[in-house]
Amino acid sequence: MARDKLRVGLVGYGFMGRAHSNAFRKVGNFFDLDREIELAAVCGRDRSKAEAHAATWGFGSVETDWRALVARDDIDLIDIAAPNDMHHDIAIAALEAGKMVMCEKPLGRSATESAAMVAAAERAGLPTMVWYNYRRIPAVTFAKRLIKDGRLGRVFHYRAKFLQDWTISADLPQGGAGLWRLDIGVAGSGVTGDLLAHCIDTAMWLNGAISSVTGLTETFVKERMHTLTGKVEPVGIDDASLFLSRFANGSLGTFEATRYARGHKALYTFEINGEHGSIFWDLHDLHRLQLFDHRDAGPERGWRSIHVTDGDHPYMDRWWVPGLSIGYEHSFVHQVADFVKGLADGVPATPTFADALATDRVTDAVLSSARSGRWTESGL
Amino acid sequence: MARDKLRVGLVGYGFMGRAHSNAFRKVGNFFDLDREIELAAVCGRDRSKAEAHAATWGFGSVETDWRALVARDDIDLIDIAAPNDMHHDIAIAALEAGKMVMCEKPLGRSATESAAMVAAAERAGLPTMVWYNYRRIPAVTFAKRLIKDGRLGRVFHYRAKFLQDWTISADLPQGGAGLWRLDIGVAGSGVTGDLLAHCIDTAMWLNGAISSVTGLTETFVKERMHTLTGKVEPVGIDDASLFLSRFANGSLGTFEATRYARGHKALYTFEINGEHGSIFWDLHDLHRLQLFDHRDAGPERGWRSIHVTDGDHPYMDRWWVPGLSIGYEHSFVHQVADFVKGLADGVPATPTFADALATDRVTDAVLSSARSGRWTESGL
Amino acid sequence: MARDKLRVGLVGYGFMGRAHSNAFRKVGNFFDLDREIELAAVCGRDRSKAEAHAATWGFGSVETDWRALVARDDIDLIDIAAPNDMHHDIAIAALEAGKMVMCEKPLGRSATESAAMVAAAERAGLPTMVWYNYRRIPAVTFAKRLIKDGRLGRVFHYRAKFLQDWTISADLPQGGAGLWRLDIGVAGSGVTGDLLAHCIDTAMWLNGAISSVTGLTETFVKERMHTLTGKVEPVGIDDASLFLSRFANGSLGTFEATRYARGHKALYTFEINGEHGSIFWDLHDLHRLQLFDHRDAGPERGWRSIHVTDGDHPYMDRWWVPGLSIGYEHSFVHQVADFVKGLADGVPATPTFADALATDRVTDAVLSSARSGRWTESGL
Amino acid sequence: MARDKLRVGLVGYGFMGRAHSNAFRKVGNFFDLDREIELAAVCGRDRSKAEAHAATWGFGSVETDWRALVARDDIDLIDIAAPNDMHHDIAIAALEAGKMVMCEKPLGRSATESAAMVAAAERAGLPTMVWYNYRRIPAVTFAKRLIKDGRLGRVFHYRAKFLQDWTISADLPQGGAGLWRLDIGVAGSGVTGDLLAHCIDTAMWLNGAISSVTGLTETFVKERMHTLTGKVEPVGIDDASLFLSRFANGSLGTFEATRYARGHKALYTFEINGEHGSIFWDLHDLHRLQLFDHRDAGPERGWRSIHVTDGDHPYMDRWWVPGLSIGYEHSFVHQVADFVKGLADGVPATPTFADALATDRVTDAVLSSARSGRWTESGL
Repeated sequence: MARDKLRVGLVGYGFMGRAHSNAFRKVGNFFDLDREIELAAVCGRDRSKAEAHAATWGFGSVETDWRALVARDDIDLIDIAAPNDMHHDIAIAALEAGKMVMCEKPLGRSATESAAMVAAAERAGLPTMVWYNYRRIPAVTFAKRLIKDGRLGRVFHYRAKFLQDWTISADLPQGGAGLWRLDIGVAGSGVTGDLLAHCIDTAMWLNGAISSVTGLTETFVKERMHTLTGKVEPVGIDDASLFLSRFANGSLGTFEATRYARGHKALYTFEINGEHGSIFWDLHDLHRLQLFDHRDAGPERGWRSIHVTDGDHPYMDRWWVPGLSIGYEHSFVHQVADFVKGLADGVPATPTFADALATDRVTDAVLSSARSGRWTESGL
Repeated sequence: MARDKLRVGLVGYGFMGRAHSNAFRKVGNFFDLDREIELAAVCGRDRSKAEAHAATWGFGSVETDWRALVARDDIDLIDIAAPNDMHHDIAIAALEAGKMVMCEKPLGRSATESAAMVAAAERAGLPTMVWYNYRRIPAVTFAKRLIKDGRLGRVFHYRAKFLQDWTISADLPQGGAGLWRLDIGVAGSGVTGDLLAHCIDTAMWLNGAISSVTGLTETFVKERMHTLTGKVEPVGIDDASLFLSRFANGSLGTFEATRYARGHKALYTFEINGEHGSIFWDLHDLHRLQLFDHRDAGPERGWRSIHVTDGDHPYMDRWWVPGLSIGYEHSFVHQVADFVKGLADGVPATPTFADALATDRVTDAVLSSARSGRWTESGL
Repeated sequence: MARDKLRVGLVGYGFMGRAHSNAFRKVGNFFDLDREIELAAVCGRDRSKAEAHAATWGFGSVETDWRALVARDDIDLIDIAAPNDMHHDIAIAALEAGKMVMCEKPLGRSATESAAMVAAAERAGLPTMVWYNYRRIPAVTFAKRLIKDGRLGRVFHYRAKFLQDWTISADLPQGGAGLWRLDIGVAGSGVTGDLLAHCIDTAMWLNGAISSVTGLTETFVKERMHTLTGKVEPVGIDDASLFLSRFANGSLGTFEATRYARGHKALYTFEINGEHGSIFWDLHDLHRLQLFDHRDAGPERGWRSIHVTDGDHPYMDRWWVPGLSIGYEHSFVHQVADFVKGLADGVPATPTFADALATDRVTDAVLSSARSGRWTESGL
Repeated sequence: MARDKLRVGLVGYGFMGRAHSNAFRKVGNFFDLDREIELAAVCGRDRSKAEAHAATWGFGSVETDWRALVARDDIDLIDIAAPNDMHHDIAIAALEAGKMVMCEKPLGRSATESAAMVAAAERAGLPTMVWYNYRRIPAVTFAKRLIKDGRLGRVFHYRAKFLQDWTISADLPQGGAGLWRLDIGVAGSGVTGDLLAHCIDTAMWLNGAISSVTGLTETFVKERMHTLTGKVEPVGIDDASLFLSRFANGSLGTFEATRYARGHKALYTFEINGEHGSIFWDLHDLHRLQLFDHRDAGPERGWRSIHVTDGDHPYMDRWWVPGLSIGYEHSFVHQVADFVKGLADGVPATPTFADALATDRVTDAVLSSARSGRWTESGL
């Protein structure tokens, strides 16, 4: 039986471009999809790099101008894996051209940009999705299921952090390929939009809206060589971003993101403490979920280290056998699988642009609070 | 050779009274001290309990009025293990009576009380010490040594938390024996003075002064039966207390204490991230220190789990053999040993009353900030 | 530049068939290979299953008789992912037909079978390889590098175990699809060939030849329903297999494999203790290597938990960024990459059939010793 | 109410002498005992050391000849903390003099010596006990309770190891104070009696008799300077001792002890795998027990890390509050408490001399098997 195709046009061939391409190319080997995915085109400013990407991943064609890509009528879905400053324009143009859109996070460089993108999506009435991929690490999805089943009861505390250490050296330049995340003009913010946004997305998915925050940001290295201008220039991004918060459900939050935590490469962790139990997860050991169940018999209570690789764990019936772990890239595969399933079901997979806007409202509130020194409402 | 005696009068026979008695009684078995410790008297309102304590631990006599204890001329040192509301009066009276004083933490119920106690100590010119015992867990003392040796370089981040879960049940009453920590009048504050104060003491010892804070407190259970009045009464203490901070050295702090973190009994942890390395410690596995050294060869870098039980680790030459761990109570033994050594050396062991006052200035700032919603200076 | 093709014919579409197909299909997305891999044909007795496999993975054609597959002249490499009892015949026929051969482990059901396969490979002068895939988990490959660099010094101890728990229920039948590993006729042995063989392959790769062994085997469940005969029949396989050994280098080995270790899904672990350091690895956390370096400064010695995800770790420059882990399936991708690289270099990648025969000599010695109760030489 | 006294005469003032003295001195502070313990005398060949020990610990008198100690009529209990070669003579003489005896492990240097000691105990009809102290680490005692309650069901596997690394240097001499464990004449064996004996004692306590064994021993450093003779002499002890075994209940055992496992100071671990669950314990983190319960709901199964510090854990109601750990030395305190309780109850606390003889039968079988290369019955 022939399936309809889902023709993908990808913008960006960097780290995220590879992760997306791998997901689109691989998902059909492991998931039964209603749509056959076709890698129609990859778009990037450097033609030779775009062609190399196309050759490696099997894209059918190459574009060097995203406007040309968006204008093509043989493409159903535009996938944006370009730097943050391009998200807004591409997404809106694509939606206006009648394409579905998947977009890397954060959605916009600010809630203002994101709100315009959400409005465009609503006008177009087309499915959208943002690549907050950590929701689909099986251990994280399993945490969601446990919470939804009421296993934690009333929640008291949520804490998350995302710790890296790759920008400690003052010799690292800012700007340009691979380093645009240090360029405020391109990135919009530093770790707030890059790392903290992941923490916020997961937190609100698992524990509901964050109502108000008090934030603190710091730029430890104040000046860096800019690779595009060739001059030492002020650093505009935040190197570290921390905040305390109140959730709508009455629980308290502690959040921290930094690129100055020596010894941590990508230590995204979260912990939730509820009346009946607690949950902990850690990206460095992404295949495990720690669960404490207070309803276990008293002397036998302990944090359970659950190896989330069984067939009855989320997504894991599609992969190998118990005990054999999958990795980071699989979260992207799951995201594509869910997106395609959402098309078939008519229930869009989340996070949509609207969900990602909510995250941006919180990051904006954090940055605003860090400037004012006051508690700030997110408006959620 | 006959040694001078150090005659101890203890106030309090509860949990802390036992910990102190054990320390005084045991220290001479493991440490060579210039003074012979004599357990002269134990004082408590309930004579039979005081007598039982004396019998168990070998105190020579019993008092039921601390004023009588303080007035005795056969006592050199008053050790205060009574509830927080008694610290101020006993300490000042003891100092005025010419006694050295060791006092449980927090020093006063507020910095105002503590400042008066410091003033009394200065007037008296007598040694004082406060039982922030965690400084003397060997792994923590070892962390101090590493930092002092410059192993971390410039510090960027400090984070600490103290998580418990013993007051989650709304059926737990407040006030009276064993539960005075829930009674605002006696305790002065909730987890801020009880748990967060430990985190702050260690933090400032390891990383210098905390300059400013923004705090958040919550009382999850608003009313509890009061065991002394027999009535349901408002709960005045904070159940959870969190703050962000700036240290004088430019690093950022994240602090959290709560009694509503299901699954954690006494999870005091701290982590410090510096330019050259990082350190992590955890009271639940108190005999280990985690150290990351960025100067290790690149591919071989990893967090080292150091089993702090070797003869060249702090205090450990006095105990058993490598691999055999000591526990919580030993931190008190070390504190007595250092106090007595400080007497001999003429260099008072820390933390003195003045050091503990600094901690109280921070806890006061946290509570004040939690009320005002503003960043608050500690005055340090 | 057009590359030569490497046309693959796969026998088997089960668990291992999927793992191999994924590796062949994916390797070119991440590794620069001299050969373009073409999935020429998949072969299996059930045509509809073979066709489904071909559709999912993109094989160009289907065969139902491996003899027909082997006879095709448009195939360069026969990859055997069929049950153990088919390895011998297919491999020899393929070699005689001039095909390269990759074969699942164990090579034969006994060293006798394996020796014949090695002889055929030598006669044919063609490259062969056996899928002892754990060598190519980056943490394991990194262990090999450390040992080769002399980091451990003289080795005293090697210990490995492979613990599972999936056959504890006496209701589990034997034989047939998915359960042929419990059928002595098909499998040749129980955990000895299935799990212990992995331990032995890694051990001899890392620590040299195992000279002699004393073994112990047990079959805990003596009878099981046989799915092919429909009758309860004796269980011929070993459920658990343990042995002590002497290595040629003078070190001592402890080995254990079982499917009766409740709580362990695929806990393959090994540890090596040398004069200067030790290494530990664990399949359940496959992205980490534990390293103890005795040459670290005394008080700072500790087991380092190395997150083997940096660009300077084996294979990891091909994947994502530091901190983001890969999983089980990637070891197969690496194996294909190395095999193809070996073709280009003229230095065959290991383990070859000859290497795998050595492993079978040890498993045969273990089984023989378990029967005789005597120490048994491996002949290595 | 005056309690009867239990007057203790201790032989030995080394590492174990200190551990015993601490236990006797401290037990009454934490446990309600029917007997008041009096430290009557300490005995050792070096009078000044014995006097120092007496002064430190509060022994009432000193002896330099154990025969004089045994002959005293003001002593009820002889506690033997002297090197292994003295156990036999002192114990028998003490029993014949009507004293209760507590003796360090192993009981004798061989089962022959131990059998004579058991016979003497039976003739005397007096309580005896052997210091296999690890039974009384709360986590280990808790494991016993869980097994007794049937939580594991049928047991399949038991594995234990005791790994140290303190004798790797060939420069370490043998013999004399602190090094008698390397002198075959004094110690009787190497790690077999020193470390493996602990593993065997716990194993038979938790899992019943070990029926038969196949062993392997090695002496890695063949010659060492002897501190007493001043000459390089052959090393008679085993540096490593490994064995496989069958238990009477049908389960299989793997045991290993060595002093050549770099990175491990005193890593005594055991794991038991049963039908319904598994247990793991580790002396390096002695306050934790790992429990896997297969009857937990499928997807939520995981190894629980139980912090064995609650009031409903064995012995822990006597110590501090949940989360605050005790250490190695407390196992000795518990042993004294149980011994005294056994006197009151008329049910002798275990392990008695007879229990320790069973352990020696297994160690003898291991050593015999290591010589013969054959499976050897323990006679149990």
